[in-house]
Amino acid sequence: MQQHGVAAVLVPSADPHLSEYLPARWQARTWLSGFTGSAGTLVVTREHAGLWTDSRYFSQAERQLAGSGIHLMKQRVAHAAEHLDWLQQNLHGGDVLAVAGDSLAAATQRQIECRLREHGASLRIDLDLPGLIWSDRPALPQAPVAEHDLAHACIARGEKLARLRNAMRKLGATHHLLSSLDDIAWLTNLRGSDVECNPVFLAHMLVEAAGRATLFVQRVKLGDALVAALAADGIEIADYAAITSALNDLGAADSLLLDGSRVVSAVAGAVPPAVKRIEAANPSTAFKARKSAAELDHIRDVMRRDGAALVCAFRRLEQRLAAGMNVTELDVDALLAEERSTQPGHVGKSFATIAGYMANGALPHYQATAEHHSTLQARGLLLVDSGGQYLGGTTDITRVLALGPTTTEQRRDATLVMKGLIALSRARFPSGASGPQLDALARAPLWASGMDYGHGTGHGVGYFLNVHEGPHSIRPPSGGGALVPLEPGMISSIEPGLYKPGRHGIRHENLAVVVEAEQTEFGEFLGFETLTLCPFDRRALEIDLLSPEERAWLDDYHAGVRAALGPLLDGADLEWLNRHCAAL
Amino acid sequence: MQQHGVAAVLVPSADPHLSEYLPARWQARTWLSGFTGSAGTLVVTREHAGLWTDSRYFSQAERQLAGSGIHLMKQRVAHAAEHLDWLQQNLHGGDVLAVAGDSLAAATQRQIECRLREHGASLRIDLDLPGLIWSDRPALPQAPVAEHDLAHACIARGEKLARLRNAMRKLGATHHLLSSLDDIAWLTNLRGSDVECNPVFLAHMLVEAAGRATLFVQRVKLGDALVAALAADGIEIADYAAITSALNDLGAADSLLLDGSRVVSAVAGAVPPAVKRIEAANPSTAFKARKSAAELDHIRDVMRRDGAALVCAFRRLEQRLAAGMNVTELDVDALLAEERSTQPGHVGKSFATIAGYMANGALPHYQATAEHHSTLQARGLLLVDSGGQYLGGTTDITRVLALGPTTTEQRRDATLVMKGLIALSRARFPSGASGPQLDALARAPLWASGMDYGHGTGHGVGYFLNVHEGPHSIRPPSGGGALVPLEPGMISSIEPGLYKPGRHGIRHENLAVVVEAEQTEFGEFLGFETLTLCPFDRRALEIDLLSPEERAWLDDYHAGVRAALGPLLDGADLEWLNRHCAAL
Repeated sequence: MQQHGVAAVLVPSADPHLSEYLPARWQARTWLSGFTGSAGTLVVTREHAGLWTDSRYFSQAERQLAGSGIHLMKQRVAHAAEHLDWLQQNLHGGDVLAVAGDSLAAATQRQIECRLREHGASLRIDLDLPGLIWSDRPALPQAPVAEHDLAHACIARGEKLARLRNAMRKLGATHHLLSSLDDIAWLTNLRGSDVECNPVFLAHMLVEAAGRATLFVQRVKLGDALVAALAADGIEIADYAAITSALNDLGAADSLLLDGSRVVSAVAGAVPPAVKRIEAANPSTAFKARKSAAELDHIRDVMRRDGAALVCAFRRLEQRLAAGMNVTELDVDALLAEERSTQPGHVGKSFATIAGYMANGALPHYQATAEHHSTLQARGLLLVDSGGQYLGGTTDITRVLALGPTTTEQRRDATLVMKGLIALSRARFPSGASGPQLDALARAPLWASGMDYGHGTGHGVGYFLNVHEGPHSIRPPSGGGALVPLEPGMISSIEPGLYKPGRHGIRHENLAVVVEAEQTEFGEFLGFETLTLCPFDRRALEIDLLSPEERAWLDDYHAGVRAALGPLLDGADLEWLNRHCAAL
Repeated sequence: MQQHGVAAVLVPSADPHLSEYLPARWQARTWLSGFTGSAGTLVVTREHAGLWTDSRYFSQAERQLAGSGIHLMKQRVAHAAEHLDWLQQNLHGGDVLAVAGDSLAAATQRQIECRLREHGASLRIDLDLPGLIWSDRPALPQAPVAEHDLAHACIARGEKLARLRNAMRKLGATHHLLSSLDDIAWLTNLRGSDVECNPVFLAHMLVEAAGRATLFVQRVKLGDALVAALAADGIEIADYAAITSALNDLGAADSLLLDGSRVVSAVAGAVPPAVKRIEAANPSTAFKARKSAAELDHIRDVMRRDGAALVCAFRRLEQRLAAGMNVTELDVDALLAEERSTQPGHVGKSFATIAGYMANGALPHYQATAEHHSTLQARGLLLVDSGGQYLGGTTDITRVLALGPTTTEQRRDATLVMKGLIALSRARFPSGASGPQLDALARAPLWASGMDYGHGTGHGVGYFLNVHEGPHSIRPPSGGGALVPLEPGMISSIEPGLYKPGRHGIRHENLAVVVEAEQTEFGEFLGFETLTLCPFDRRALEIDLLSPEERAWLDDYHAGVRAALGPLLDGADLEWLNRHCAAL
C-alpha cells in the first residue's frame, strides 16, 4: 500500500463473474483474514483493518479473526455497505482507495466513486494489491467443459441465441456483454465444474445482434469436437483473458447491452467511452428463469429419481439405527450421496449436505466435519437438507426425521413450520405478484405463536445449474430495488423454518413451479405446483394441530408421492414409502 | 405561453402544502381541464394538451374531457410520472417548461430538472401561467383557527416543541421548515377548517433549535387571546406570505432541516444556497403517528360515541325501510350526520359519506348526489363508509348492511372479505414489519377464490386530524422507497373489499391500533387492537363458511361491542344492539 501510495484497500467477496460461490483463486478476503463465511468485506488502511459481516457470522468471525489484528465490524443490516460509510468518514482529500477491478461490480464502482468524490478521495481499480502479495495464489480452475445434450437441454443453442438477439434488437443494442456463468452455460448448452456443486465454467461472452457470438474461455477446457459444434452454431472461441481487448475494439457506432451489477469494473472499463451503453438486466436471466414445458417434464422425472433415492437413503438410515449401529451425521451424507449416485442422469451434489441432529439443526450454516459432528441417537429430530445435480434438473429438499420418541415441543414446532409451508404451497395470487408480497403467508402461522425464522422463504433454482438462481425470490420486502413478479415456469423453494439454539432446528423444504391457476373477472391468478416428491415424517408432527384443510393437503401430497415413487421402488423401500404415505 | 417564451406548462394536483385534498384556490388542473378526479396531471404544449391519470378515473376523465381539446393520457401504472417521459420525448434543446413553484415539491423539481437537462431543456418555477389567466380564482380560505384544548390534545405544545427541538439537535439542524398542515396543527395544538373535512389551516412553520418558533399564518384567523397563548409558548405569528423572506434571512451558519418531498419549490427556493440543508422526514410526522396512551383513551371514548351514533342511525334506517318509507342513499348520509352530531365532542365529518346501494357499492369513488342517487329497496346490500371528526379523535368505518333477502353470492362475497379482515386483525408480526409485508394476509382468502380488490388494505388516521395520515400504510410492496415499520401507537384502517361492477360492492373496515403482543426468544411481536365499535351485519354473511377461529373472533368482537355501547343506548337502539351482537 505504501509503495503504491494507497491509503486504503477494500477486498470484497467477489469474482469476475459476481457469482455466489467463489473459485479459490478469488477468495482473497478469506486468504487475507482467515474468515471463511460467505459474506464479508475486508478493509485495510494504514492504521486499521476491519472485517464487515452480518449477524449470521458474528460468532464465527470472532473466532476466526482472533489474534489477526483485524477488527470484527458488526453490520447492523445484512448486505448494507456499512464499510463505505466508514471509509467516507476515515478517508481524506487526496486519499486513494484501491479495489481489484476484477472483484468489483461496475455499478458498485460508480457508487464508490460518487461517495469518495464528496470527500476528495478517489478510487483505483487497476491495482490488485492482495494479488501482488499472494504468492501461492490458486490458479484458474481448469475443469473440462462438456455439452449439455439436446435431449436434456431441450432448446437448441441456436434458438436461444436467436431469442437473445431479438431482445437485443428491441433494446437497440448491437452488442451484449455477458459475464454471468449460469446465463452463459444456459445460453450455450454447455456445462463445466469450475465452481463447487454449480456445473458452470469461467467464461465471458460477447454477442453481436447481427453477426457472431464469441465465448471467452480457456480453449483447453473444450475438445475439438465441441469447438466445431459451437462454430456450427455461430459461436467462436477466444481466450478467457481476451475479453478486454475484444471490448476495446468496440466503437462509437456500437451500443453495448450490459448489466452493471453483473459485470466487473475491470471488464466494463475496457469499453471505450464512445460506445453507447444500454443498462438493463441480462435477457438470458429472465429466459432461463421461466422453465419450458419440456424442461419441466425432465424436472418432474428428476424429482421422481431424487425422491426414490431419498426414500432408500432414509430407509437404510432407519434400519441402521434400529439395528443399534453407530450412525453419524457424516453417514447421512454418505447414504444420500450413494443412493443419488445410482439414479440415471445424476451428476453430483447441488450443495454440501446439511445434516443436523438435534441442536446442530439449529445452527444456520451447520456443516458436519470429521473433527466436529454428532452421532445420531434413537430419539429426537434430524434435519436433512440436501440436493443433486442431474442432467434434467437440480434438486434441493429439506426433511425433518423423527429418529425415535419426540417431545411435544418438537412436534409442535415442526407442525407450525408445516402450516407455513402448506399456506404458501396452496396459495393463489394475482399475476404480477412478487415473492416479497407473499412471504408473510409462510411466516404468519409462526408469528401467531411469537416465532419467526431469520432467512428467506424461497429462492429460484436452475435447470442443471445453480441451486440458487434469480431473478426472483421469496423474502420480506426490503424497500430497495424493483420487485420481480413471479411468472409461470419459475421454480422456487418454499422453505420456512424454526431454530432453537441448543435444542433443535426445523426446516421443511419443497421446490415448486409457478403455474397458471385460473382466469376470473378479477384477472389472472397463479399458484404453485409442488415438484418435490418425498414424504414428510409424520412422527415429527402433531397431527391434531393441523386444520382439516391442512390434513387434506398433506394426505393429497403423500398420495401423489406414493403414486410417483411406487413404480421405482420395491421390497423394504416400497414398504417404507407406503407406510410414510398412508393417510394421516 | 407564447408571451413568456414557454414551450410547455405542467399543472400538477398540488397545493403549497402538498396536502391530499386541495383548497379550491389550488385546483388549477380542475379549473383548466374540467376533470375533477383526485389524481391527474395536465400538460399543455404549443400543439398538444394531455391529462394523465390512472385507471380509477378513465371513464370519468373521458366524460369530463370530451370536447375540451385535451387528450386523455392513460397511465399504465398509478402514480408513475409518465407525463415526464412524454415531456422528455417531446421537448427539445432550449425549450422551457413552466410549473407554478407553489404546486411543485422541491424533490420533484430536482427530478424534473435532471431529466430535462439530458435534452437541453430547462425548468422555470417562477411563472404561474394558469394563475395569470384565472381571473376569478378563489381566494385563500379564511376559516378561523381555534385551540385544541389541552384536555383533548393531551400533550402541551411546549412539550411537543421541546421534543421536536431534541430531534433537530440530533440531526444537527439549527432550523426546521415545516409546511405539512397536519403536522403544524398537531405541533401547535391548533385546529382550523381550511380543507374540507380535515381540521387544518393553511400555514408554514419555521422552528429554531435554540430560540423561537414562527407560525406563518393569516393573523385574522387567530384571535388576540390565541396569539397571546402562542406567544407564551414561544410561538410568534408572521404573515402567511412572509415565509419566503424569513427563509431568505437564513445564513451560512444555519442548517435547515426539511423534507424535500413535503415542501414546495417556491418556498424551498427561498433558502439561500449557503445554508446547509438536512434532508430528512419531518420528525413531527413520526411523533404524531404514534398515539400516546392519553390520546388512545380519548380515541376509545370517541369510538364508543361514534359506535352509538351508528347503531342509532342504522336502527332508524331499518325502521324506515320496514315502514315502507322512501329511503335514498342521501337519507343514509343525513341519518349518520344527525346521529353523530348529537354525540359530545363531535365537530363534523371526516370525509364525504359513501353510501352505495347494490351496484353503486361497486363504484370505487361513488358519491350519491341530488341528481344521481338510488332509492333503497328491502333487499340486497348497502355499503356505508363514513366517519366523524371529534375533539378526541377521527373515525372512519365501513359496514355492509343486508336490507332484506340476500343472494348466496352476496353473502359468500361478504364472508370472503370478512375472512381477510379477521386474518389481518388477528395477526401477530415481528417488531420492524411494515404494512406492505402484511398486506397479503388480508387478500389471501380472496385470492384463494380468484378475487382481489384494487385499493390498499389500510391507511393511517390522525387524532382529530386528517383521516388519511402517514407515514405508514398497508398496501402491496411496490419496489420503491424505504418501508415504514408499524410501531405501537400507530392507528391503521383494515379495509379489504370486493367489487363486482353492476352487481354489488363489499367493504368491511375497522380502525385498529398497533400494540405490543409478546416478547419471546425470537424477539418482540406486535398485533392490532381493534378500536372501531360497531356490529357487522350477520345477515350479509354466510356463517357456515367461517372457520371456528373466525366465528370465535366475531363473537368475541361483538361481545366487546355490546359491553362498550350498551351503557350509551336504550330502548329500540339497545334492542337493535343486542340483537346484532348476539353470538353467531
